[in-house]
Amino acid sequence: MKKIAVILSGCGVYDGSEIHEVVLTFLAIEQNGASYRCFAPNISQHHVINHLTGEVSEGESRNVIVESARIARGDVEDIAELRPENFDALIVPGGFGAAKNLCSFALDSENYRVNEQVLSACQAFANAGKPAGYMCIAPAMLPLIYPQGVQGTIGKDKGTAALIEAKGLIHNDCNADDIVIDTDNKLVTTPAYMLATSMVEAAGGINKLVKSILLMV
Amino acid sequence: MKKIAVILSGCGVYDGSEIHEVVLTFLAIEQNGASYRCFAPNISQHHVINHLTGEVSEGESRNVIVESARIARGDVEDIAELRPENFDALIVPGGFGAAKNLCSFALDSENYRVNEQVLSACQAFANAGKPAGYMCIAPAMLPLIYPQGVQGTIGKDKGTAALIEAKGLIHNDCNADDIVIDTDNKLVTTPAYMLATSMVEAAGGINKLVKSILLMV
Repeated sequence: MKKIAVILSGCGVYDGSEIHEVVLTFLAIEQNGASYRCFAPNISQHHVINHLTGEVSEGESRNVIVESARIARGDVEDIAELRPENFDALIVPGGFGAAKNLCSFALDSENYRVNEQVLSACQAFANAGKPAGYMCIAPAMLPLIYPQGVQGTIGKDKGTAALIEAKGLIHNDCNADDIVIDTDNKLVTTPAYMLATSMVEAAGGINKLVKSILLMV
Repeated sequence: MKKIAVILSGCGVYDGSEIHEVVLTFLAIEQNGASYRCFAPNISQHHVINHLTGEVSEGESRNVIVESARIARGDVEDIAELRPENFDALIVPGGFGAAKNLCSFALDSENYRVNEQVLSACQAFANAGKPAGYMCIAPAMLPLIYPQGVQGTIGKDKGTAALIEAKGLIHNDCNADDIVIDTDNKLVTTPAYMLATSMVEAAGGINKLVKSILLMV
């Protein structure tokens, strides 16, 4: 059975992993006969957003791996323990947590960086030539992980794409229910909720991403 | 387009809605050409569970509708605003939140009660003869909502079933990927994560539940 490591960044679109993307990813992995394990950094979230009001919940603090455990039904490991040799592929779902906790794209504009443990884990998969899938805003990390000229998509937002292209990504416009494949880097990306207006649309792209990655294993 | 109201109870299996069940419900509703809106009570959660350790997070307090908004991507309304005349059917996913926040089944054993606003909303659907689906542990509320002799399932756990049967539910053993239909009450139940050991299993029962409810509309 093919094994996929999934990196989570909290629990909730505005300050963590986008929940629908993660669950659709788990479902697609299972439906394709593979298995997954979840990993997340043991760090404080950048902040907590009240998802009802959209405002920062002042004075509140939550931990990324602890909140990620909500989506994973308790079954999540510290990303420091992620050994690529134990897995066939990597998937990084989106949500603002990917751009606030896994890297600082949503905070530091053109000076954004990837969390050191996340960078180490993602680069290890890239260096081992193992396939990987990044969805939604998570491809912002790609030019800091892969060689210059890596191909991917974050959907169709020109401003967002320009910032990531300045770091070295070759951005391709892509619909929510589709994927972009970088064959050389064994890398698949899909816009998911950067563009999706329904779960069925998001699932379309996510299912293709999971199938493509498993075919590359 | 048929419209379904979904009642949430927080965000996370141990103190709120079971996230996979909710997302699989949303997906099945969309895939069957219907739409949904989410509702939750504006009350404090019974408690907060650290989902990584399984322990109570002492001193921490979270609100049910605010946390439910994480699964609903911000789009959730106060259950006090739920008008059954605006919807064709009701679905209540499970998770411990259903047994700790929507009712007190997990806390008060044979003396459990349903939150007044939740009871009012659920009874309004029942009295209007509109179909409803309850999954996982949520069917514990059924004997307090429907007439004595209502039929349903919470899976195969005899102790749990006995407590609910004492209140008036006629319990039917059921596999995770299947449903129990009470035709007279237009009511569908499925065990979901009371029994499911994989998302594919849970999805099997949830997909049948959603299809059956929509056929009853």
